[in-house]
Amino acid sequence: MNEPSFLSPLEETVVVIGVGLIGGSLAAALRSRRVSRTVIGVGRDIDRLKQAHAAGLIDEVSTDISQAAARADVVVFCTPVDQVVDGVRLAVHGARPGVLLTDAGSVKQPICDALADVSAFVGAHPIAGSHRKGFEAADPELFEGRVCVLTPSPTADAAQVSRLDRFWRAIGMRTVSMSPAEHDRALAMTSHLPHVVAASLSRTLADENRRLTGSGFRDTTRIAAGDPELWCGILLQNAEHVLAGIDAVQHQLNEYRSALGTGDAERLRELLVDAQRRREGLG
Amino acid sequence: MNEPSFLSPLEETVVVIGVGLIGGSLAAALRSRRVSRTVIGVGRDIDRLKQAHAAGLIDEVSTDISQAAARADVVVFCTPVDQVVDGVRLAVHGARPGVLLTDAGSVKQPICDALADVSAFVGAHPIAGSHRKGFEAADPELFEGRVCVLTPSPTADAAQVSRLDRFWRAIGMRTVSMSPAEHDRALAMTSHLPHVVAASLSRTLADENRRLTGSGFRDTTRIAAGDPELWCGILLQNAEHVLAGIDAVQHQLNEYRSALGTGDAERLRELLVDAQRRREGLG
Repeated sequence: MNEPSFLSPLEETVVVIGVGLIGGSLAAALRSRRVSRTVIGVGRDIDRLKQAHAAGLIDEVSTDISQAAARADVVVFCTPVDQVVDGVRLAVHGARPGVLLTDAGSVKQPICDALADVSAFVGAHPIAGSHRKGFEAADPELFEGRVCVLTPSPTADAAQVSRLDRFWRAIGMRTVSMSPAEHDRALAMTSHLPHVVAASLSRTLADENRRLTGSGFRDTTRIAAGDPELWCGILLQNAEHVLAGIDAVQHQLNEYRSALGTGDAERLRELLVDAQRRREGLG
Repeated sequence: MNEPSFLSPLEETVVVIGVGLIGGSLAAALRSRRVSRTVIGVGRDIDRLKQAHAAGLIDEVSTDISQAAARADVVVFCTPVDQVVDGVRLAVHGARPGVLLTDAGSVKQPICDALADVSAFVGAHPIAGSHRKGFEAADPELFEGRVCVLTPSPTADAAQVSRLDRFWRAIGMRTVSMSPAEHDRALAMTSHLPHVVAASLSRTLADENRRLTGSGFRDTTRIAAGDPELWCGILLQNAEHVLAGIDAVQHQLNEYRSALGTGDAERLRELLVDAQRRREGLG
């Protein structure tokens, strides 16, 4: 493989729609690794875009998806999941032949189903993030060593899929490919359910107990600090699988309830050892 | 207040029973802040104690609680909660008049009830810890700025309680006082329930989904990596309150289930906003 260099970037012009934590980090990674010659940041708030430009994250700013997309080799949607479909329809309209459209959304089936007729679109989900929001928290290393899931449709153009694969790998990610349904079922368990669990635990905290929290409570509820609006969209778009996840964690809680209720030390130890084993090696 | 100095330590000789993460960190804090002139580390494994001595955490080592306690001004039990009561009975036997016995256990009522006749004992719980174990993870700053709960019995000697208060504050902690029952009810919610929740979530992770976990899953399950033996003891000793905590978090999970099941975006947003608000400012 040729390493991308400044003289021969992998993609000439990349348009990033939504310059928040993910979009800002992507832009920063594209620039620092010289994956593209130009990164255009698109958003609704021109002042915020100018700040992101001043912060050195993007080369140019635009508030017009169609106009920016008309100049793009690759367009990446880093907006909340419920804004991706409309955005792609706007972008594809004026885009040049050969353009590649993708996204960074945490839910894939509703997006990929709705865009099944748009051959230039191949869904993706870089699994990286933070409970922080805004480009101020952007980090060019956010994606380094992390997994990006590609969810091409069965009829997707192989050359475009392999181009998308190179794109995400160029910012340091490992890529895996699966169907949108498989992705959504898995991510319900590994990402969306943890959010519901953290938020449920957070809601059990009485004000008078705040001073008695330690690092355990803090770690376990950290992601509950995430943007409610963003998560509301994600959870609703993947409701069926998240509900199955809630069933699964309720079942596990019942196992603890039963062991504790009967004072069954052996069973309790078994549950804790299994939990520890599954947690091992995740970092 | 006089700051402790090397020439006039707050307590001449402190015996730390159990030189693991907590005991090792306490010993390190006592030494680095010169709270005591001598720290004796007591444990069952002489080789481990010698390693802790070589690591500079303790001044002397002993495998005999009674012998060490006979030289102590203060004895602090940093063992698993189910070993504190027997240890205190051994220690108090040969101890000098005026000795102060305390502990660092995460559950207080069973310990304080069982030791109600030992006037030299005043229970404590420094709320600080880590999912790591062993003195190798010891950190003299572990207690800095954190809360230590004191649980004196109503008949405790006021001078001893105030001495204990000074002791924990001397390693940088803020102290609060409450009854053992109040402590156990509160800590069930802020510490023991989070462990059950993290461990329950960990048990929902299928092997094939491991590669699809991100920082959210990692944070939310981090404490599930904690020592199963240690946690088995804590959870069983506080079973009644932990069961009430499981009820509370299951109730919250049901709220999410209901909002998601009916596609009620407004209610879901409300739940997420409340969870975020309660999480704010915890660090």
